[in-house]
Amino acid sequence: MGTVDSTAPGRSIDLNSDLAESFGRWTLGDDDAMLALVSSANVACGFHAGDPLTILAALRTARDRGVAVGAHVAYRDLAGFGRRDLDASPDELYGDVVYQLGALAGLARAAGTRVHYVKPHGALYNRIARDPVHAGAVVAAVADVDRDLPVLGLPGSVVLDVAAEAGLTTWREAFADRAYRPDGTLASRRDPGAVVHDPDEVAARALRMATEGTVVAVDGTVLDLRPDSLCLHSDTPGAVQLATAVRAALDRAGVRVAPLADGVA
Amino acid sequence: MGTVDSTAPGRSIDLNSDLAESFGRWTLGDDDAMLALVSSANVACGFHAGDPLTILAALRTARDRGVAVGAHVAYRDLAGFGRRDLDASPDELYGDVVYQLGALAGLARAAGTRVHYVKPHGALYNRIARDPVHAGAVVAAVADVDRDLPVLGLPGSVVLDVAAEAGLTTWREAFADRAYRPDGTLASRRDPGAVVHDPDEVAARALRMATEGTVVAVDGTVLDLRPDSLCLHSDTPGAVQLATAVRAALDRAGVRVAPLADGVA
Amino acid sequence: MGTVDSTAPGRSIDLNSDLAESFGRWTLGDDDAMLALVSSANVACGFHAGDPLTILAALRTARDRGVAVGAHVAYRDLAGFGRRDLDASPDELYGDVVYQLGALAGLARAAGTRVHYVKPHGALYNRIARDPVHAGAVVAAVADVDRDLPVLGLPGSVVLDVAAEAGLTTWREAFADRAYRPDGTLASRRDPGAVVHDPDEVAARALRMATEGTVVAVDGTVLDLRPDSLCLHSDTPGAVQLATAVRAALDRAGVRVAPLADGVA
Amino acid sequence: MGTVDSTAPGRSIDLNSDLAESFGRWTLGDDDAMLALVSSANVACGFHAGDPLTILAALRTARDRGVAVGAHVAYRDLAGFGRRDLDASPDELYGDVVYQLGALAGLARAAGTRVHYVKPHGALYNRIARDPVHAGAVVAAVADVDRDLPVLGLPGSVVLDVAAEAGLTTWREAFADRAYRPDGTLASRRDPGAVVHDPDEVAARALRMATEGTVVAVDGTVLDLRPDSLCLHSDTPGAVQLATAVRAALDRAGVRVAPLADGVA
Repeated sequence: MGTVDSTAPGRSIDLNSDLAESFGRWTLGDDDAMLALVSSANVACGFHAGDPLTILAALRTARDRGVAVGAHVAYRDLAGFGRRDLDASPDELYGDVVYQLGALAGLARAAGTRVHYVKPHGALYNRIARDPVHAGAVVAAVADVDRDLPVLGLPGSVVLDVAAEAGLTTWREAFADRAYRPDGTLASRRDPGAVVHDPDEVAARALRMATEGTVVAVDGTVLDLRPDSLCLHSDTPGAVQLATAVRAALDRAGVRVAPLADGVA
Repeated sequence: MGTVDSTAPGRSIDLNSDLAESFGRWTLGDDDAMLALVSSANVACGFHAGDPLTILAALRTARDRGVAVGAHVAYRDLAGFGRRDLDASPDELYGDVVYQLGALAGLARAAGTRVHYVKPHGALYNRIARDPVHAGAVVAAVADVDRDLPVLGLPGSVVLDVAAEAGLTTWREAFADRAYRPDGTLASRRDPGAVVHDPDEVAARALRMATEGTVVAVDGTVLDLRPDSLCLHSDTPGAVQLATAVRAALDRAGVRVAPLADGVA
Repeated sequence: MGTVDSTAPGRSIDLNSDLAESFGRWTLGDDDAMLALVSSANVACGFHAGDPLTILAALRTARDRGVAVGAHVAYRDLAGFGRRDLDASPDELYGDVVYQLGALAGLARAAGTRVHYVKPHGALYNRIARDPVHAGAVVAAVADVDRDLPVLGLPGSVVLDVAAEAGLTTWREAFADRAYRPDGTLASRRDPGAVVHDPDEVAARALRMATEGTVVAVDGTVLDLRPDSLCLHSDTPGAVQLATAVRAALDRAGVRVAPLADGVA
Repeated sequence: MGTVDSTAPGRSIDLNSDLAESFGRWTLGDDDAMLALVSSANVACGFHAGDPLTILAALRTARDRGVAVGAHVAYRDLAGFGRRDLDASPDELYGDVVYQLGALAGLARAAGTRVHYVKPHGALYNRIARDPVHAGAVVAAVADVDRDLPVLGLPGSVVLDVAAEAGLTTWREAFADRAYRPDGTLASRRDPGAVVHDPDEVAARALRMATEGTVVAVDGTVLDLRPDSLCLHSDTPGAVQLATAVRAALDRAGVRVAPLADGVA
């Protein structure tokens, strides 16, 4: 009585991670391990990573485990892994995003699942957090392929505003292992302490994000992020260990880890 | 009485052509002109040619003109325009075809149309005419993405047999400007006379193919090809002129040029 | 007496043009025609355009006609033809430029010629006109491969300063068909009148640049550009006609068209 | 007296390995560890693997350690890692090999070393062991870039014959971890026992190859391979361990491990 029932309905959070980032002979990350921990997989679409066989394998496992599929669309830049800003015209970007959404949808269909949402990758993710032109191109592409696809992004980012204006569903994500500035933006990776490496600390931050919706910024400010989903990195050393710690902490606290998308499993 | 009514219902033929083969800064063929002449467009899917903007433009015009859309899937070989045999594993080929089918479907949806059939391109087209392993990979890909997509190919080719066995619809095509051997295969381009260049002769051959279903082979044998569709080349000098001559001959003879696919326009 | 001797020694100018920009099945420009008109060929190196066979053909013709060979290095972006700013790290850019310089040198050797200078292409050209970091990466790459390679660029651009500081030879180029602002920069292509299309006017501007070293800016200011080389576009409609007009005007005026590089022919 | 002096001068062998096969974000193999064990590095040239920064890093280490540099030229196929037969025309293959040789030479120059030999990779290696047309294209490319570059290949392969006829130096290699058929060809990887995994056995085979020049084929036949170089795999699990065992066995037996190329260190 008066105590919080940690198993109460509604105490749930989505965990997402970038997967299917191998390419041909090159392996990156451990998709199988991560797909046992997350509820949403941001699946590479071939422009920054992800050959069709890698993608199909991830999609089949996601289907089997009830993991939602996000289209991890990117700039066309295999050599740079989609991490370099590319000054595509809005039309080019629109076309490239439509192409990637379609390709992933085809692979998902062949794998017995479907695309549930869209999360842009890398340099594109960062750019559309502030550039309304590229954000508009991405949103138009999503809307023209499937208006029911939600867009997952950084709270406060331009793309979420543009998506909402276009009538798309938007989902907010937070990063348990990244330091936040008082204004809610992520601290630059160049700053000391920008990335939290200790699994216990990351797990504690994740739990707070999932249960209270908040994070403590670098100056002590409590930010009311209210994330729908927590992003766990997949391609860094110790990624699986970190994800395991986060998942265990959430499980222990009775927070259900579940996709935001309907009808996944 | 006793004469053929050239305007009778049923006197119709499909004309198909390879389109959307530009890439970025490079233009190839005259998509707009050809889309006024053909009823089916084999649209490049990005692996041998076709950037998303080029494809979108072709798809929009195809939609406006009631032209059916074929997925012109290919080996992954931009530098070789998909014309070089590539010894992909069956799994790789399967994945590459699914990827391309999906990508084109996404672009088609954004352009207000859809993919109506599949016609493999170049070296892949030639290989699956005789190689059951690669043919099987292509057919499995089509079946897993959309079992209702017909496969367009050379009469007598292995891929049409494999597709039929898998329960897919198959369509037969003929080439009005190519010489045929008595066994129904195309004469090698290296042989003299393998390609017919005279527009009047090509038009006459096309008309005979469309009305009688036959072609005279190099040795005089009359081949009963019964094609569903005639392929008109798009990327050779004089391609538009040749296509115009064929179309005019068919129009004059009262042969309706119409897509095989249902519900196109 | 008192008149200028138009055939006097020293009355010479270099004409350069971007060539070898075809790729595989796709043809762009008329290399053969342009190589009869220019004295220096900026040869694509495969990152924005130029497959090895296209490059070899251009190099062989350049060798036969005594045309100097420039390495037209670019960002790695075939889909964007090197015209999109790409935020490569300085190390990546350094490596990409070294790679391209080497590749072209190998092809030149096989074709019986050599690389005589470097002219960056497209978005890279524009960026290193103002960005000292990318300019520094390009200059370091040139210096590490061959310190004797001059860099051809826009007068006043950062890259020429950086190159000169590094001890490299720098060459200045001007554009006969582009309008100049009073500060010596090129008018934006979006401005009306930014590109001069009339062959006679372009020829007249080229002649003035070659003989007096000046151009009249959009506001009437006379700019003392003193170009070493004039750039003629190769991939626009009418490019050959424009180049022919420029060359004829220079020939008529007794201005010798000759490479800047030593020992070309 | 009468015994072999295992430390006699001339008891030496070259060890080669495929290196610089990472690409962008993707890491493959442990170049640094392998470069401490081998005397010759087959360095990827960007067509099957190897971005410029990866290559530069390997070249700098090779330079520091007196390791010779081989151009590991390949078919243009990043997605297939150069392991898929690609039916390039002889001209295309010639151009692609020249391009890669040049690119690597440029990077080597920037890294303070040079290219010492050529060893084709993967599907190209296998094809030119039997196809005189592709072999001829490769040999012509090498000869046109630098007639002093030796070609390293399988004893009995067509390419070594073609190279020798063209006046190039040829070097013979053997594989310590691969089973041989009685005719001197490698057992298919699909056959049981085709690959030897036990480090001690591989080391013993390598030692015999280095000191006696022989290997025992699958049926007991003693093959007189007389290899100039032994190839150690770099991209399989345990590759470094295997190479370490081979190197240790050679060192213990007083066999000097040294490049075939002159003037390396």
